Amino acid sequence: MFRLNSIIAVLFLSSACSQGQTPAGDEIRLVLTNQVKAWNRGDIDGFMKGYWQSDSLLFTSGGNVERGWQATVEKHRKSYSDREKMGTLRFSDLQINILSESSAWVFGRWEVVRNKDHPGGVFTLVMKKFPEGWKIVHDHTSIENEK
Amino acid sequence: MFRLNSIIAVLFLSSACSQGQTPAGDEIRLVLTNQVKAWNRGDIDGFMKGYWQSDSLLFTSGGNVERGWQATVEKHRKSYSDREKMGTLRFSDLQINILSESSAWVFGRWEVVRNKDHPGGVFTLVMKKFPEGWKIVHDHTSIENEK
Repeated sequence: MFRLNSIIAVLFLSSACSQGQTPAGDEIRLVLTNQVKAWNRGDIDGFMKGYWQSDSLLFTSGGNVERGWQATVEKHRKSYSDREKMGTLRFSDLQINILSESSAWVFGRWEVVRNKDHPGGVFTLVMKKFPEGWKIVHDHTSIENEK
Repeated sequence: MFRLNSIIAVLFLSSACSQGQTPAGDEIRLVLTNQVKAWNRGDIDGFMKGYWQSDSLLFTSGGNVERGWQATVEKHRKSYSDREKMGTLRFSDLQINILSESSAWVFGRWEVVRNKDHPGGVFTLVMKKFPEGWKIVHDHTSIENEK
């Protein structure tokens, strides 16, 4: 019986790991939830806390490539210069894939609801765990629609 | 002197690792080179050998999401139904980032030269090492221009 329980426990754990339902998956989900919360209170600096504060951060969206945290924050400040341009951000269909103890990738959908339009699309994040927690080291965002 | 040599060797190796100039980086580069060669001889099946042959392969390009190897190969066979549509593929500015012994991500530029147009953009790949070698488990391709 003990052996059966052990097998069930291993099966449960391996299933949980592959689904990102691990502490790492929870930690990553929290980073993204905090980004959305920051965005939706108009706080670009808070949103940027999810990113690796490094010259090696690589951000690409809609055909533009920004290298480094500074270039990325400046791009966001310029593109979303007021609360109306930021709109309301929502992430959905998040798929968190753990690669190792300190690395993961995430795929998901994003949408921004604004008065005049409703852009959305998909994104891929590469995340690494640093002493200060999980951070996005690469963000590849695509814009699918401009509803 | 021995100690200095050791320090230099360690510095060299750690620098090489971060640049993807490792055997893993070389192996990954070879997978991508073989994909380009296959594409440029009109061999979609050969091109697809770079991808993980699994229902969990996740491919997204230009706003479409394909889940699974079969859906991905069918999408390619449909979009590139003849040699002229395939054109000549070229990858450039490849940045190979090793995450662990068995995982990595790659960022690069792609272009396809055809008689009528010249599409191009950037791509992000997540790669994992399997017993049969490094395979792309996720491809996020963006189309920047339709020159």
